[in-house]
Amino acid sequence: MAMLRLAISTRGQGLYEFTDAARDFLRGSGVDEGVMTVFVRHTSCSLLIQENADPSVQTDLKAFFRRLVPPTTDPAMDWIIHRDEGPDDMPAHIKASLLPVSLSIPFAEGRLLLGTWQGIYLFEHRDSPHRREVVFHV
Amino acid sequence: MAMLRLAISTRGQGLYEFTDAARDFLRGSGVDEGVMTVFVRHTSCSLLIQENADPSVQTDLKAFFRRLVPPTTDPAMDWIIHRDEGPDDMPAHIKASLLPVSLSIPFAEGRLLLGTWQGIYLFEHRDSPHRREVVFHV
Amino acid sequence: MAMLRLAISTRGQGLYEFTDAARDFLRGSGVDEGVMTVFVRHTSCSLLIQENADPSVQTDLKAFFRRLVPPTTDPAMDWIIHRDEGPDDMPAHIKASLLPVSLSIPFAEGRLLLGTWQGIYLFEHRDSPHRREVVFHV
Repeated sequence: MAMLRLAISTRGQGLYEFTDAARDFLRGSGVDEGVMTVFVRHTSCSLLIQENADPSVQTDLKAFFRRLVPPTTDPAMDWIIHRDEGPDDMPAHIKASLLPVSLSIPFAEGRLLLGTWQGIYLFEHRDSPHRREVVFHV
Repeated sequence: MAMLRLAISTRGQGLYEFTDAARDFLRGSGVDEGVMTVFVRHTSCSLLIQENADPSVQTDLKAFFRRLVPPTTDPAMDWIIHRDEGPDDMPAHIKASLLPVSLSIPFAEGRLLLGTWQGIYLFEHRDSPHRREVVFHV
Repeated sequence: MAMLRLAISTRGQGLYEFTDAARDFLRGSGVDEGVMTVFVRHTSCSLLIQENADPSVQTDLKAFFRRLVPPTTDPAMDWIIHRDEGPDDMPAHIKASLLPVSLSIPFAEGRLLLGTWQGIYLFEHRDSPHRREVVFHV
């Protein structure tokens, strides 16, 4: 068994890839076969496995979630009560409910069984810079 | 290895916290480090890790999902076919697809590595009282 | 420990049940108690645990996600940038973000602890036939 806490610095809403850090952790663990758990210790950002080829996929994903859950300054969000921490805060909690907080990724022969196009991302939902913590376990 | 089935009684749509039950189970298991799996055995309620500080977050989350997936009595939902079990039934299945059925939470030194504000909830999507069953495993 | 890669052939958008394949794998593994991980190696389809009784639930689920994320030929989606791979491609990535890529299902006495109505599905989001790969691990 091995565990690691990884800090990820974010600079506003969007996707931050950390697939390489997950691979490095697995290599260092010396474990050949099993399941890697990834967990994010926050309620206003998410984990996501998505395409890491064309960057426009990430732009569109970010735009989709902003349209589905706009900032609370948008008249469509006038029913929101929780407003103390800024117009991006409650939408961040909603997005964090719609997207994963934990992932379970199998590996064999010391390699994650990700598909060809799958990258592992932290999806930041807040506007200001944040220091996020992700936990790896095998 | 340890496993427990926990019954949770719900009284309508909303979030029911059971973080303490998860902590108690972990303590009783005697396991120091690993991953706790939480699984809900139903298709019309969900699991959710969300902020447990300000209750207005929960009110807004419940309102968001009700707006995204209104009861089938709402004209916006006139395309729904599955109506036999009441106006809250098919929306409950849809919400249960959008929110987690299983969670994987790492722990170390006998403590869940939840972030400061993370609580573990059952999110009930049905209006009438239900007895729900959650499975813990470490 | 046991692991299996299962190929699933899809013929357009919709739900493809593979609960029996998961049960067969568990039986063959000889493991009595633990957690089965299910992981899908793609970014344009998903896993889903949902009701396997009334087929209209699946029809409504497919319709809901098509309404929430229509093809990019729909004027409501004119803001989408990633269009090279067809009108169903970027919506498929968005749906794959909203629905699970991994599931963790506990089992005891050699049987998955699924609820009475829970079936395990691959949710295909692309229109054309695809060969998908799912990984089981216990």
